[in-house]
Amino acid sequence: MLTRDTTHTLTEQLAARFAERIRSRLLPAGARLPSVRACAAQQSVSPYTVVAAYDLLQAQGLVEARRQRGFYVRDYVAKAVVTMPSAPPVAKDRTLKDAVSLPAASARINATSLIRGMMHKATHPQPGAGMFPPEWLQNQFLQSALRKVVGSDALHAMHWSYGAPMGDELLRALLADRLKELGLPVGMEQVMTTMGATQGLDIVSRTLLKAGDAVMVEEPGWSVEFARLAALGMQVLPVPRGPDGPDLAVMRHYCETHAPKLYVSVSVLHNPTSYSLHPAAAHQVLQLAQSFNFYIVEDDTYSHIAPEHATRLSVLDGLQRSIYVSGFAKILAPNWRVGYMVAPPDLVDRMLDTKLLSTLTSPALMERAMALCIENGQLRRHIERMRSRLVQARKHSVPLALESGCRFVTEPAGMFGWVDTGMDTEVLAQRMLDENYLIAPGSLFHASRQPSTLMRINYACTQDPSFWRVYQQVRAEFPQAEPMPR
Amino acid sequence: MLTRDTTHTLTEQLAARFAERIRSRLLPAGARLPSVRACAAQQSVSPYTVVAAYDLLQAQGLVEARRQRGFYVRDYVAKAVVTMPSAPPVAKDRTLKDAVSLPAASARINATSLIRGMMHKATHPQPGAGMFPPEWLQNQFLQSALRKVVGSDALHAMHWSYGAPMGDELLRALLADRLKELGLPVGMEQVMTTMGATQGLDIVSRTLLKAGDAVMVEEPGWSVEFARLAALGMQVLPVPRGPDGPDLAVMRHYCETHAPKLYVSVSVLHNPTSYSLHPAAAHQVLQLAQSFNFYIVEDDTYSHIAPEHATRLSVLDGLQRSIYVSGFAKILAPNWRVGYMVAPPDLVDRMLDTKLLSTLTSPALMERAMALCIENGQLRRHIERMRSRLVQARKHSVPLALESGCRFVTEPAGMFGWVDTGMDTEVLAQRMLDENYLIAPGSLFHASRQPSTLMRINYACTQDPSFWRVYQQVRAEFPQAEPMPR
Repeated sequence: MLTRDTTHTLTEQLAARFAERIRSRLLPAGARLPSVRACAAQQSVSPYTVVAAYDLLQAQGLVEARRQRGFYVRDYVAKAVVTMPSAPPVAKDRTLKDAVSLPAASARINATSLIRGMMHKATHPQPGAGMFPPEWLQNQFLQSALRKVVGSDALHAMHWSYGAPMGDELLRALLADRLKELGLPVGMEQVMTTMGATQGLDIVSRTLLKAGDAVMVEEPGWSVEFARLAALGMQVLPVPRGPDGPDLAVMRHYCETHAPKLYVSVSVLHNPTSYSLHPAAAHQVLQLAQSFNFYIVEDDTYSHIAPEHATRLSVLDGLQRSIYVSGFAKILAPNWRVGYMVAPPDLVDRMLDTKLLSTLTSPALMERAMALCIENGQLRRHIERMRSRLVQARKHSVPLALESGCRFVTEPAGMFGWVDTGMDTEVLAQRMLDENYLIAPGSLFHASRQPSTLMRINYACTQDPSFWRVYQQVRAEFPQAEPMPR
Repeated sequence: MLTRDTTHTLTEQLAARFAERIRSRLLPAGARLPSVRACAAQQSVSPYTVVAAYDLLQAQGLVEARRQRGFYVRDYVAKAVVTMPSAPPVAKDRTLKDAVSLPAASARINATSLIRGMMHKATHPQPGAGMFPPEWLQNQFLQSALRKVVGSDALHAMHWSYGAPMGDELLRALLADRLKELGLPVGMEQVMTTMGATQGLDIVSRTLLKAGDAVMVEEPGWSVEFARLAALGMQVLPVPRGPDGPDLAVMRHYCETHAPKLYVSVSVLHNPTSYSLHPAAAHQVLQLAQSFNFYIVEDDTYSHIAPEHATRLSVLDGLQRSIYVSGFAKILAPNWRVGYMVAPPDLVDRMLDTKLLSTLTSPALMERAMALCIENGQLRRHIERMRSRLVQARKHSVPLALESGCRFVTEPAGMFGWVDTGMDTEVLAQRMLDENYLIAPGSLFHASRQPSTLMRINYACTQDPSFWRVYQQVRAEFPQAEPMPR
């Protein structure tokens, strides 16, 4: 809130607010600042104040004026560009009819704004957050497990050496057991720990791909994955993700034209749609993979909150040409960075090499403590509590979203809702930030950051009617943007 | 030792021994197995037994026979190839006159054999080890620091979130203080934690380079760095490292012909030579960097055992075009993976993005515990003890090496000695493995894995005369290989 009683002028306050958002990537490179008139109205200040604030930002090198078009955030950090291939044959993408104040179609990807948002420290639950609120993750057993490991004389030696390259042996044995339950009969010699699922995905890309290779990703999807692939110099091919699985016609087209080497997939509780893969689609994807000789990396980040007996590509495939990646960051202790991956036997050694080249080993203390939480059953009980809690959260959140005029474009499930607001959610996101709410605009989940009227909501963080009241007020400021007929 | 009283035949035992070495990379891809006659003599078995063992290995797909040339280890794991540029104008490389049983000149780099060796579990100190023996690192204060962090109620919250993207704030503040002492006046906002210095180097490469870029490295040098760059698709340009610094003529030649984007340097106590950079050479390197517009990443891994007031490129440069990378793995708790990096202000944000894309955050527990060890002075006292101990180790080790016929090609200093054995040290390394000693042959420190009569010894692990007795015995088996005149 801008105030008139501080030592800083309104101009300075307004400029500082934008500057902070730009630096923290909440206002990404390529984004247009609100028009002078709109900003003046939103902030209840004179247009003169807004012009002065924008000039100040320009002097600071944070924005640039484009003739007749307004002010745009400068790309002050050079970013990798996602190489977009020729348009797929089936155009199913949602587009805005009345695009206003959008980044250019060629806007550079800025997925780290999503991560930065994820790390954003807030005083209240953030609807755009990618994780459960800290109070959901709080428990005593983590501390007990750590104490036990730290207090164990037998484990002192783990500090004086680099540790086992593949990771803590107890954890790997327990993970192998869990994977057997999922239908993946692997031995612990195929299980390697990683710094979260993030490093698992990174290791797969670095091991299997070389710069310039084509990789299929799901769109909408986790744009941090798009950004990582782009930064590694890969050609990112977005395949539309539907309720049953990827668009197989688009996938086949890419296979025929781009010879992709890898397909990155969240089969179960896909982010942001919460779709889960249909067995028939899984079978067809594997047939394509066989015909066109590409690998599949299955990101099972949401594994612990997934429905029983969900279909996984790596299970159907028997880990022939698929790599399974998962971790505990969503469910337990994000900062411990305990993740793991399972690869076909002939790839394990190469994956290990990539791990060694990128971080050497991983901290055994965190891995052993996680192993204890699994072994003593506390993780399982914790997960059961989390799942019930999530069911309750959806029961609260879904009606509130509907009452606020949002439309669910996918069946509510899992952790995230994928809803249509009827207006450009990048514009909405900027206004909601004025009210201290971080939302996740749909554009963040597109490889080309294309404008979208959708947003992803975190059920755990949207149970409070006070958020939805603010949402409705802000949404009402944009009456001209009506939900598009579908 | 092969025995006649087990349930396995001598052939099976011999094959199993080679198979284990091949799988653990101690016998790298491209290496030639000893000739049948030599092996039979070394192992006191009949040539028939050796032939049968080699056939068994061939049947297992681990080695291949090359007509008239013997048996070679198959490259069963596909590796990145280091792109070697045209020969530098000044050929200072040591070459073997009478090359016998060497990997082909085009042998693929296999730096992970060095890492695997580093991780090798052994019952006695290994002369080729890259780290201090565990008993040197043992102490009680690590455990105390961990207990303190785990027991702190105020710090419980660190588990429920991803943590600070740049790393633990207390550690970063303390590191900024330390860097000021080194002559780098940086604020903590420029200091970012990493998973060991390894991830720091990885982040620099991934942020500043794209596939195909040319990068200058020091040769001999840390081949894990060569392998990482090669795996990322970079062109690796080895610059000979002399007592005062890199060969500036070669460096200039590369600048003129290859426009390298980066120079990777261990200025102080360079591995494996233990050379430290001369101030005048540092000045000239920086002038070249300015003229030809390349970045420098300075790997200060041996910082804690370095001489006072050692010259560092990043200090002279004032972090204009240099990035400083260091960590604690050599001195304290290798498995904690606590490292850090400092970049010019305009690069910090990009480096952070790369960290987030590769591992997200890093475990705050390890970082905070390390911070406590620094804050309470225990790390400083520990380092003083380590330094005295290392001086003593050199006093014991150097005369033993000299008495055993080794010649120091560089002035003894730091942790590693770089000695000439007068024979191909890859061949020597294989024979020493029979005696359960792991040595580090000079070829491991060359980008092209060229044959070398040098080996790196770890002073902390070569104080025991029993190693040198075995060394002398094995060395005497190769009387024809005399030290080359220099």
